[in-house]
Amino acid sequence: MTNFSESELDDIRAESARAYELDRAHVFHSWSAQKQLTPMTISRAQGSRVYDGEGREYLDFSSQLVNTNIGHQHPKVVQAIKDQADILTTINPAHVNAARSEAARLVTERLPEGLDHVFFTNGGAEANEHAIRMARLYTGRHKVLSRYRSYHGGTNLTINVTGDPRRVPNDHGDSGVVHFFGPFLYRSEFAAQTEAEETERALHHLRRTIELEGPATIAAIVLETIPGTAGIMVPSPEYVQGVRALCDEFGIVYIADEVMAGFGRTGTWFAFEQAGIVPDIVTFAKGVNSGYVPLGGVVMNNAIYDRFADSPYPGGLTYSGHPLATASAVATINAMAEEGIVENAAKLGEEIVKPRLEKIMANSKHVGEVRGVGMFWAIELVEDKDSREPLAPYGGGSEAMTDIVGKLKAGGVLPFVNFNRLHIVPPLNITAEDLNAGLDVYEEVLTNADYS
Amino acid sequence: MTNFSESELDDIRAESARAYELDRAHVFHSWSAQKQLTPMTISRAQGSRVYDGEGREYLDFSSQLVNTNIGHQHPKVVQAIKDQADILTTINPAHVNAARSEAARLVTERLPEGLDHVFFTNGGAEANEHAIRMARLYTGRHKVLSRYRSYHGGTNLTINVTGDPRRVPNDHGDSGVVHFFGPFLYRSEFAAQTEAEETERALHHLRRTIELEGPATIAAIVLETIPGTAGIMVPSPEYVQGVRALCDEFGIVYIADEVMAGFGRTGTWFAFEQAGIVPDIVTFAKGVNSGYVPLGGVVMNNAIYDRFADSPYPGGLTYSGHPLATASAVATINAMAEEGIVENAAKLGEEIVKPRLEKIMANSKHVGEVRGVGMFWAIELVEDKDSREPLAPYGGGSEAMTDIVGKLKAGGVLPFVNFNRLHIVPPLNITAEDLNAGLDVYEEVLTNADYS
Repeated sequence: MTNFSESELDDIRAESARAYELDRAHVFHSWSAQKQLTPMTISRAQGSRVYDGEGREYLDFSSQLVNTNIGHQHPKVVQAIKDQADILTTINPAHVNAARSEAARLVTERLPEGLDHVFFTNGGAEANEHAIRMARLYTGRHKVLSRYRSYHGGTNLTINVTGDPRRVPNDHGDSGVVHFFGPFLYRSEFAAQTEAEETERALHHLRRTIELEGPATIAAIVLETIPGTAGIMVPSPEYVQGVRALCDEFGIVYIADEVMAGFGRTGTWFAFEQAGIVPDIVTFAKGVNSGYVPLGGVVMNNAIYDRFADSPYPGGLTYSGHPLATASAVATINAMAEEGIVENAAKLGEEIVKPRLEKIMANSKHVGEVRGVGMFWAIELVEDKDSREPLAPYGGGSEAMTDIVGKLKAGGVLPFVNFNRLHIVPPLNITAEDLNAGLDVYEEVLTNADYS
Repeated sequence: MTNFSESELDDIRAESARAYELDRAHVFHSWSAQKQLTPMTISRAQGSRVYDGEGREYLDFSSQLVNTNIGHQHPKVVQAIKDQADILTTINPAHVNAARSEAARLVTERLPEGLDHVFFTNGGAEANEHAIRMARLYTGRHKVLSRYRSYHGGTNLTINVTGDPRRVPNDHGDSGVVHFFGPFLYRSEFAAQTEAEETERALHHLRRTIELEGPATIAAIVLETIPGTAGIMVPSPEYVQGVRALCDEFGIVYIADEVMAGFGRTGTWFAFEQAGIVPDIVTFAKGVNSGYVPLGGVVMNNAIYDRFADSPYPGGLTYSGHPLATASAVATINAMAEEGIVENAAKLGEEIVKPRLEKIMANSKHVGEVRGVGMFWAIELVEDKDSREPLAPYGGGSEAMTDIVGKLKAGGVLPFVNFNRLHIVPPLNITAEDLNAGLDVYEEVLTNADYS
């Protein structure tokens, strides 16, 4: 915890007032109506805590956009950025550089054999852009299948592959994008009563979609192993295995989008490990370096790599494998390994988050379901448990949700919220004490909530 | 100039040998056939110089991918990165942050009044992605016009908007992309004999393209003010003014892609200034912070901003306005202003590059044309001056070009090469002495070149 002196607080307040004024005058914000915003200022951050423009402290239960897996301002990563800044910040990606080479080694070392090469990008959207391009060129097919309730990025192609409401205003009929329904027992599209039924019916639905779209037209299935912002619907291992089998049967490239779920968020380095399968392509960003420097990437299997062994890959970007970005990934991955951060996420998720959220659910009339794994949990808020009617409509907000978020912040927690859901996604190396302190606030607010 | 000690050289060699080995084992490279590469290692860089894996020095006449406008490892920018790394590397873009606010102020301060708001991205491709999205939503129209011989980015949409050979393997009929021919007197598509004829006919061609595509279907014209990698064909001011007038006449959004030409490369902060026009949207990346941290952005005029004042803009990205990236932009822009770096580019271009390239052209049988402005010059290499046949085919290489590049590197220069062209694009703050030393190498190699 940081205790600011009065003079530090004066500086923070003056700097933040100026920052706010300039933001409103000159900054255009993502996903927003620009003149309806009154954004919060973040002036400082440390570990699991962030500080607003008044120097007020919040426990960061959002990890910002679920990227600061290693917490804020981890000293080893900050030092690595400073050290690399002294040596070499940027080079043409055509050139070999030590930071990029070592980052590629460390990323592939954590993946199954056969996934041996990394193409670095600036973030997750570009990672999925290039994954899809590789799959299209490898298969000679055009279509991409993805699920409703998913997010794959903000570029034109990836927002169209996305299956959440953010796609809709960008949908001008992008060629070759097909959506299917994934497993989500709590709001089953298949009239399923059990997880086994949901898995079986969702796989049947996917098989029929493939067959009727025509396997010979389908390059790839892109799947967040556990959908993130769209709701943290943890699939059964059998579902993931079933998708792998369908891809094998029909010669379709399996792209595991691990942008949010990867790098320890679910308590293993990658979420797909928990289903015991090997994707053909893995995309990543966020947790690879906790976003300290923009970075993402694509890892492709050797068959796809070989497609571009003697024939040029037609894609690239100026900052692919940027030395400063990859140096921060090297430090992040090493620190996560040395400090057991992934194991910590698994342990705290199982021992603290799960039982506490289940208790909250039992005692709150508005909590319809809690679900998740590791440090990746969703609280589904509903009008009432019988109707399961969301407390805010799909794609929108509500007074009740605004009230809950306000109370959580007043309690000293920075929450992650999406429509009718709260996601519990703090840094993976949060202490048990801080985790419990934050969950105390959720328990207090949700147990007392009554919007009926 | 750096003089490495023997022990430093030993370290550089050992580190670089390891980096090369890991690169070949684990790194996937842009725009390349992976197993046909023998990439150069860059181990260190300083100012206008880079050092390879053996510690050998090269004058960087490429600015890498024409991004290190401020040279390598500028001490003020390195220090700013280190200082910001100590405070706050990353936040959710929804939150206000001081570094981003100040960067937005400094960028818009350099642009005409009315271009007052910045949406930050991770690079140029995403900047053009979002510029096109804004134009489509603002106009309610779908088509995007761009010129052949252009580059606008590596994502699916922007590579299709691109008009160079890198588009072709990615062209699956992307909806709404239309290409036209731009002015390029040396290889006129309009049988023009003079610059005035080329301008008039190119504008007539653009007008007819607009009229026959149907103005009511066209959201935007995207135009590199001076096309970069595609050949540095400097348009007449009248051409740029003519495009502006056509956009006004037909209600089309004028997107000036200043990713490569912007931030001083042409001797003014933005290239469009030299034609005295104001675009509706300006996209930037590269020079804004010399690529020390991945960063790009979109500046939109107030009419387009107002379109998203009370209605959400449907786009975003995790690292929009990243504190570390924008802090490096603040330091870069301030250093460029304090040190007169833009003015230096204008002066050295006019006083040294132009006369020296004209002399080289006069004395080399293979130099068909030299053209450019500021620190942004192209040398067009041809079989012979009469035929103007390129010394390498459009979209490919040749033994002659490989030989020239090898001789330039042997002479201690790192060149920028594209097909049959060499681009002279060193850092804008290169000294007159270094600039002349590098041009000596080009003069020696090109004056003696004979591939007939």
